[in-house]
Amino acid sequence: MPFTERSLVDYLRTRAAKGPRVVVGIGHDAAVVRATGGGDLALKSDQTIEGVHFRRDEAPLALFGRKALARVLSDLGAIGARPVAALCSAALPADLDERGARELFDGLLALADEHEVSLVGGDLARSPSGIALDVAAVGFLEGRRPLLRSGAKAGDALVVTGPLGGSRAGHHLRFEPRWREGVALAASGLVHAAIDLSDGLARDLHHVAVESGVGAQVELAALPRRRLPDGSLATIEQALHDGEDYELLLAAPPEAVLRLAALPELARVSLVRIGSIVAGSLAGSVAGSLIVQVDEQGRLSPLPPGGFEHRFGG
Amino acid sequence: MPFTERSLVDYLRTRAAKGPRVVVGIGHDAAVVRATGGGDLALKSDQTIEGVHFRRDEAPLALFGRKALARVLSDLGAIGARPVAALCSAALPADLDERGARELFDGLLALADEHEVSLVGGDLARSPSGIALDVAAVGFLEGRRPLLRSGAKAGDALVVTGPLGGSRAGHHLRFEPRWREGVALAASGLVHAAIDLSDGLARDLHHVAVESGVGAQVELAALPRRRLPDGSLATIEQALHDGEDYELLLAAPPEAVLRLAALPELARVSLVRIGSIVAGSLAGSVAGSLIVQVDEQGRLSPLPPGGFEHRFGG
Repeated sequence: MPFTERSLVDYLRTRAAKGPRVVVGIGHDAAVVRATGGGDLALKSDQTIEGVHFRRDEAPLALFGRKALARVLSDLGAIGARPVAALCSAALPADLDERGARELFDGLLALADEHEVSLVGGDLARSPSGIALDVAAVGFLEGRRPLLRSGAKAGDALVVTGPLGGSRAGHHLRFEPRWREGVALAASGLVHAAIDLSDGLARDLHHVAVESGVGAQVELAALPRRRLPDGSLATIEQALHDGEDYELLLAAPPEAVLRLAALPELARVSLVRIGSIVAGSLAGSVAGSLIVQVDEQGRLSPLPPGGFEHRFGG
Repeated sequence: MPFTERSLVDYLRTRAAKGPRVVVGIGHDAAVVRATGGGDLALKSDQTIEGVHFRRDEAPLALFGRKALARVLSDLGAIGARPVAALCSAALPADLDERGARELFDGLLALADEHEVSLVGGDLARSPSGIALDVAAVGFLEGRRPLLRSGAKAGDALVVTGPLGGSRAGHHLRFEPRWREGVALAASGLVHAAIDLSDGLARDLHHVAVESGVGAQVELAALPRRRLPDGSLATIEQALHDGEDYELLLAAPPEAVLRLAALPELARVSLVRIGSIVAGSLAGSVAGSLIVQVDEQGRLSPLPPGGFEHRFGG
């Protein structure tokens, strides 16, 4: 009997005891734990598995190691944490030689150096099939309140930090994790909710809507779309559902957006408003969905989550 | 061309930049990072992979989830950290249904509850082959100096916290991680070096000897051996090399051992002296090895690492 990632996550959320030091548990881009000294730690792990998250023939091995770390830096950034240290657990198959293994780690280490993150440990084991990396990282909140998926309010502007869609054509191996932006956004105190876009805009927006208890309206004409390697522009469908964009999606009061865009730490990105958060009751009137898309003619229709979700058990 | 775990770890140790917050990096049972508030965090991840660390037909699924967390609690304990929170990344194959997945996590969560560790997040993905779990955990040092593999001194007694050998007959899925003992041992200030026994006594002792720059002498007749499910006692060979004992190996001044044994937190274990740390020059005279075994007739011979090491690339 097949089952979804969401169903298992919901089960774990109910079952996992939340100790006194847990500030944010299962269900957000990263967890937050209060350290002995009082500082808040952000924790997250992300898997990067051959055949699931990359194909070995699509790029040099270094880029898979790079992606493994970049994914988790993106998650830490989305809650406003500065990444500090990482562990890499690697399962390595028999057909990967030492040069290949070093190349894999060289990619990870080069990104670590670039972001001043220290690789401090992990675990090596033999893999029965392909390469599987799992990077766990710790970041510091440094007094900032974490940006969570909950907190979006009706009337908020929905904003993304960059173009979307078609990531699988190459972007998914080369993206810049937006943690510096996330740190500045959290420090501003102006952002109500945030998530890093990994499962597809529509699905990630559903996560925010569910956690915040709101609806949302996405203006399809406003979606920034990625220029693909062949020169074409990603389609609206791709921008909505492809996933692996690793940009941030924010909910913030409309009057705050210009101030956010002016933050010096956001100079490398372009904030684009793609819609609004609406009260659940309003959007709920459209075909039962709280998330609606508005096409170029102004017509509203439900926006299904779509995008990517791991399915198991079949 | 085959290569060993050790060779890749050595490469990573040379290559990984050690940031200003890294107190202990690659090469010990866990890493130590200084938090913003000044407290020291211990970090470690461990993989538990079907076909490598367990066979699906040998026990209920819950015990594999249990083992995945227990391994990392053992590592944190070996450096004297109190485990606080864990992330579990799980790669789940198509032939595992939702009941199986829940059972896997139930085993992990039951041990987490028992040890007051919170599961705060992780990552779920589809596995192209079997079940693969990677648990990363954070622990707090709470002002204690970490117990490292380095620090053993000539003249120290070598002590283990329990019987060794034959773990694969069942112990490897049911062991009690010795973190409470590790915390008390670190707090005592009497222990020079420690390691958790996962790769086999001889191999783990080599890790301590190499990191500490010393030799060691193991009295074979003194080795505590595990009673196996069939009623027999593990052999000396098994006690030396089987691995997955998850007991602690300590180096401490002989006069400190009785005081350590009297610590209330060590009431559940029996400290057994199995040998001594010797200066490199002494043991070096025996067939070029710094690690020697002493048999019941008092004859010395080199003790090769043996035990378990992942081999890759072939």
